[in-house]
Amino acid sequence: MPKQPPLLFVLDRTKRVPLQKQISLNFKRLIHSGTLCPGKAVPSSREFACDLQISRNTVLQAYDRLIAEGYLEASPRRGLYVSELLEGKSLRKVASGGIPHQMPDNRATQFYNGATTPVPFRPCQPDVHLFPLQLWNRARTQALRKHGTSLLQYQSHHPLGLPDLRQSLAGYLQGSRGVRCDWRQIAITTGSQQALFLLANLLLKPRDCVAMEDPGYLGARLAWQHVRAEIHPVRVDSAGMNLESEKEFSPKLIYTTPSRQFPTGSCLSLSRRLNLVAFAARKRTWIVEDDYDSEFRYSRAPLPSLQSLDSSQRVIYVGSASKALFPSLRIGYAVLPSSLVEKFAKLRATVDEHGPLIDQATLAEFIESGAFYRHVRRSRREYAMRLEVFLDSAAKFDLPLSFPHTDGGMNLAGLLKGSPGDAESSRSLEKKGLEIPPLSRYALRATAPGLLFGFTGFAPGRIRKSIEIASSVLHEG
Amino acid sequence: MPKQPPLLFVLDRTKRVPLQKQISLNFKRLIHSGTLCPGKAVPSSREFACDLQISRNTVLQAYDRLIAEGYLEASPRRGLYVSELLEGKSLRKVASGGIPHQMPDNRATQFYNGATTPVPFRPCQPDVHLFPLQLWNRARTQALRKHGTSLLQYQSHHPLGLPDLRQSLAGYLQGSRGVRCDWRQIAITTGSQQALFLLANLLLKPRDCVAMEDPGYLGARLAWQHVRAEIHPVRVDSAGMNLESEKEFSPKLIYTTPSRQFPTGSCLSLSRRLNLVAFAARKRTWIVEDDYDSEFRYSRAPLPSLQSLDSSQRVIYVGSASKALFPSLRIGYAVLPSSLVEKFAKLRATVDEHGPLIDQATLAEFIESGAFYRHVRRSRREYAMRLEVFLDSAAKFDLPLSFPHTDGGMNLAGLLKGSPGDAESSRSLEKKGLEIPPLSRYALRATAPGLLFGFTGFAPGRIRKSIEIASSVLHEG
Repeated sequence: MPKQPPLLFVLDRTKRVPLQKQISLNFKRLIHSGTLCPGKAVPSSREFACDLQISRNTVLQAYDRLIAEGYLEASPRRGLYVSELLEGKSLRKVASGGIPHQMPDNRATQFYNGATTPVPFRPCQPDVHLFPLQLWNRARTQALRKHGTSLLQYQSHHPLGLPDLRQSLAGYLQGSRGVRCDWRQIAITTGSQQALFLLANLLLKPRDCVAMEDPGYLGARLAWQHVRAEIHPVRVDSAGMNLESEKEFSPKLIYTTPSRQFPTGSCLSLSRRLNLVAFAARKRTWIVEDDYDSEFRYSRAPLPSLQSLDSSQRVIYVGSASKALFPSLRIGYAVLPSSLVEKFAKLRATVDEHGPLIDQATLAEFIESGAFYRHVRRSRREYAMRLEVFLDSAAKFDLPLSFPHTDGGMNLAGLLKGSPGDAESSRSLEKKGLEIPPLSRYALRATAPGLLFGFTGFAPGRIRKSIEIASSVLHEG
Repeated sequence: MPKQPPLLFVLDRTKRVPLQKQISLNFKRLIHSGTLCPGKAVPSSREFACDLQISRNTVLQAYDRLIAEGYLEASPRRGLYVSELLEGKSLRKVASGGIPHQMPDNRATQFYNGATTPVPFRPCQPDVHLFPLQLWNRARTQALRKHGTSLLQYQSHHPLGLPDLRQSLAGYLQGSRGVRCDWRQIAITTGSQQALFLLANLLLKPRDCVAMEDPGYLGARLAWQHVRAEIHPVRVDSAGMNLESEKEFSPKLIYTTPSRQFPTGSCLSLSRRLNLVAFAARKRTWIVEDDYDSEFRYSRAPLPSLQSLDSSQRVIYVGSASKALFPSLRIGYAVLPSSLVEKFAKLRATVDEHGPLIDQATLAEFIESGAFYRHVRRSRREYAMRLEVFLDSAAKFDLPLSFPHTDGGMNLAGLLKGSPGDAESSRSLEKKGLEIPPLSRYALRATAPGLLFGFTGFAPGRIRKSIEIASSVLHEG
């Protein structure tokens, strides 16, 4: 049975045009614009008359006219439907006012229209095939059962998210990252990007100085730039962000990815962590600690989070379920110093009230059932194996790059041996269907040329094959 | 079987404290803080040693110690778990650094912690019990089947939302509200509040003038105030927003709820609609048309949307699925003039990248299957009935208010007969468990005293009973 289309027309009773004619014009408009496609059912005259609050006779007259003109057809079995004889015809637009605006041929319209899957080696992509969707759906059913219909209501008094989830996350973060917090300090956001955006709006004014790692995470830079803060790029070396040569400055906020610097992959040393926290306490600087993929450590346990070392409430810990679970879930979180909790909640209410709740309740259930941990463990094992496959293949196919930091995460920064520019290498790889961004894309200042490989989102066979291609491209260049 | 807790401790190998002791301290911290509650299982020594990348012997030693100290218990059937003898004991916090920060006793912590259901007569509440959750879940299954795992991936090239949903909404809006658009002009947002927030950021600078209805929607006012625009309140009468006495001003943006003015309920007349659209074209003013509950018209078909009357691309149409489906879904949309599409997409990417995709695909499926329209029709019938019950009860119990606009929507603004202040009446009602905000809450200037009743979220019996209570409260006052 064909599907029931929307047909709550706007009829204008103040116009001279008879209603019957307005109906048929509206139908033609919808058919010409493709909204009503050939074969699609139209509502019965009774239903339609009731929806529009007009006499059924008026509708019948309009329908008769449309049948006569060949727009609609009737059959005893299928009822009334849009004529299939119109299929494939290039329908001329009717001249009435009801035509959609034409979109200019800008970039936005050239995007592929469907959902896409990443190509090797796009960074930061979890393998969503590993995700136990059935267990997730079961947790969703449990959550709906537990909360009942209240889960469907507005919960405007919870702009920071469902207490259940905030409590589950508090337990997780205390246990796995040593984060010290009360659950009421946790704010659920639409991905970690929203946490960064809200923090930018909350903590920064135009021309405030924000220190961030360079090269560094572009999403964060966008957030600081949105509020017209001034970015102060800080050098990164093998022990992470190096603030030591920057004694004289007093940034309002420092953004850092200490577990595994994005994109280089170096880990902020413990002594620098302690210095950084002391610096922030002394200068009353905010630190935003973005722990974007700390679930994935393969060869050693992580260092303590900055938040766990900070006793002066200057560190805001930001994380995401995008990597540990799946990206389109769009759940992130921030652990806020208590002084910021209320302000953050107020701003969130202005920005989008609160996030979708069924997913939040589902995630709480997923954590409490243990499925979350099992999935993280399983992914970690699988990604560790892919990391090995990656490095083995890089050696085997003589990939002309060195990988200084190979102990965790989802990406590997490879330094190009004796190449002048990484952007060109990246473009050559793109021509062969590979998406391997240059490190320079993430940098404000000149940086060691290199390429960023995400290795977690791709099966071992694909990793091998893609490295073979990459190697031949890079050797050609 | 008790649930598996998260126990990926942060161990610090640089410290002098032996790992074994760090483990037991961490356990104690988690037990004292309530993260590990009595009876909760802890991981096997093998699993735990593997997670932490340490020797199993170290874990066994720590476990032995915790058992000896009474923190853990072991049984052949249950494995190792947190001792139930600790149940109910007021656990003294350990003196180590791992204690959660204390939250100040601020307002944020006094909120009720669970999800709540609205009390009569909170405005703008759909009855979520009418929502066909099973059909929704079926649409979700269909959507997951149709898109496959690509629906779980990042779709950063679709900051405006899933094309499927934008196409379905385009069809719906063309059919039901006469909105003229190409689907690429539709931006999916996290509720209509996000649409307003993004538009404020996109279109306004500090001190720009925004004209909005007074009394008017508070969420919109928050959005304009966030970018420090200046609010110009415009009087509302029985034909909607009255711009006629405001000939001399040139606002950057006009915010209006023409279908049914929020909160008064008056409908913007056709002549004023035409004037407004002409004014915007002449002055190059943006109009934000918030069509927040247009699905619910009971006694007459709606007037054409402003967007459908506008040929100069100055109107931005904003809507929401919160009322037609359920509020915690958090899906709204804006129909953008083509000149704004790219800028809006760029801003959205900065704010939170994109919204959750499974829900978007589900809504597309729900619309295409016809379930959406059936649900809207069913709700409309039910709400029409509740409106009658409301008005009958108001007459029966002699509610001392007059209701000038009773032809649609989800709320009724009642004008208080001879009362000096509506805020006081609202407070008296609140003491009896009723949530009926005063009209003055929505106004910047003095307004006719009145109360705003939402009638859609409550069953007929509850409406009757609550009106009886309200009437006695108001007659007492």
